[in-house]
Amino acid sequence: MDSAGETRTIRRRILQHNEDLAAELRADFERAGVFVVNVVSSPGSGKTELLQRTMAALHPGVRVAAVTGDLATENDADRLALSGAPVRQILTGTMCHLEADMVAEAISEWQLDDFDLLFIENVGNMVCPSGFDLGEDLRVMLVATTEGEDKPLKYPTLTLTADVAVISKIDLAEPVECDVDLLAANLDEVRPGIEILRTSAKRGDGIEQWLDLLRARIGAKSAAKAD
Amino acid sequence: MDSAGETRTIRRRILQHNEDLAAELRADFERAGVFVVNVVSSPGSGKTELLQRTMAALHPGVRVAAVTGDLATENDADRLALSGAPVRQILTGTMCHLEADMVAEAISEWQLDDFDLLFIENVGNMVCPSGFDLGEDLRVMLVATTEGEDKPLKYPTLTLTADVAVISKIDLAEPVECDVDLLAANLDEVRPGIEILRTSAKRGDGIEQWLDLLRARIGAKSAAKAD
Repeated sequence: MDSAGETRTIRRRILQHNEDLAAELRADFERAGVFVVNVVSSPGSGKTELLQRTMAALHPGVRVAAVTGDLATENDADRLALSGAPVRQILTGTMCHLEADMVAEAISEWQLDDFDLLFIENVGNMVCPSGFDLGEDLRVMLVATTEGEDKPLKYPTLTLTADVAVISKIDLAEPVECDVDLLAANLDEVRPGIEILRTSAKRGDGIEQWLDLLRARIGAKSAAKAD
Repeated sequence: MDSAGETRTIRRRILQHNEDLAAELRADFERAGVFVVNVVSSPGSGKTELLQRTMAALHPGVRVAAVTGDLATENDADRLALSGAPVRQILTGTMCHLEADMVAEAISEWQLDDFDLLFIENVGNMVCPSGFDLGEDLRVMLVATTEGEDKPLKYPTLTLTADVAVISKIDLAEPVECDVDLLAANLDEVRPGIEILRTSAKRGDGIEQWLDLLRARIGAKSAAKAD
């Protein structure tokens, strides 16, 4: 086999290994009735800001926890822990995305039955996380008004695997001259029918709608478990 | 060899293959006396905006060309081509960074002797491009005020391999409440002594300084060729 063929084989093996572990994680999440959300975006799109506000709003009524991935620093875990909910930082070193085994390791000391909702905040990267299932129920893609309207078109692999798109920082749409309708239309062009929320974690726009979406999904999952 | 060991071996081989090709590219660039700049940042940090303004200012007095990488769309090439300078789009599909062979292929029909300056606009990604030498003389890292002050700390691999840091979108520092001094201090903490420019491609701040830096480096390289 040539070098390129060998690389493809290894890559397929890595992805298959991840798929297997993700399936195990998904079964664990299912048994515990915990609803799992994988949050993916560029660096600086506001993942941590959104989750910080979300966790503060939900905890402790909804039993929420989070794992957050970064190459370096525990900044995000520190911010999310302000909510009072359990949080683990995953330090990936030079790795550009989270894989299922990192999530499994990070949550290994938790009792999943203790939680209704688990957030997985991925490494800031619009490309590589797309290929790695983490056993989540919902993949949420953030795209900030500050990044420009064309990002869904330029990063189709993420857009195509997202279940919900959160347009973040809409309070900044005017100063950065972002046409939010065009951004939403571009999301819908790549992923027709995708649910799109327009939010500002700072100002509060769209946050109630986001919390309602989460509550409805959590309720549906725990009802399925009770059956 | 176990699967992880095999993966490491293949990864080392990919990197080594890239190093070899990058060395060839660098020798070609050297012979032609063309100064090459690899521009790396998150999606939406303003790489294209900066290069569009830069190329319009330099062309045709400085003989400039550009190759630009994206997963999909030719938007960036179209924007850069407005300058009148030669531009090639590299479509990477699902690939999260440019490699030396993609650059070699993209420039294969050009005569390098025709150029003083070649920009390589990388795929929007703060992680993966860091490991791939493209034969460039200068690696420029962009970080936008809209991304927050902590990005140099959270993405140290890029920061550590950058020669120059361009803080972009400083016209937006106030509305997004970015402390530009803190952002600069974080860059300097990870990469002590790195040259830092504070720019707004839209408003023009720092652009003369950026053009002066490029002109000085181009002059030094063509003088070296003449020797």
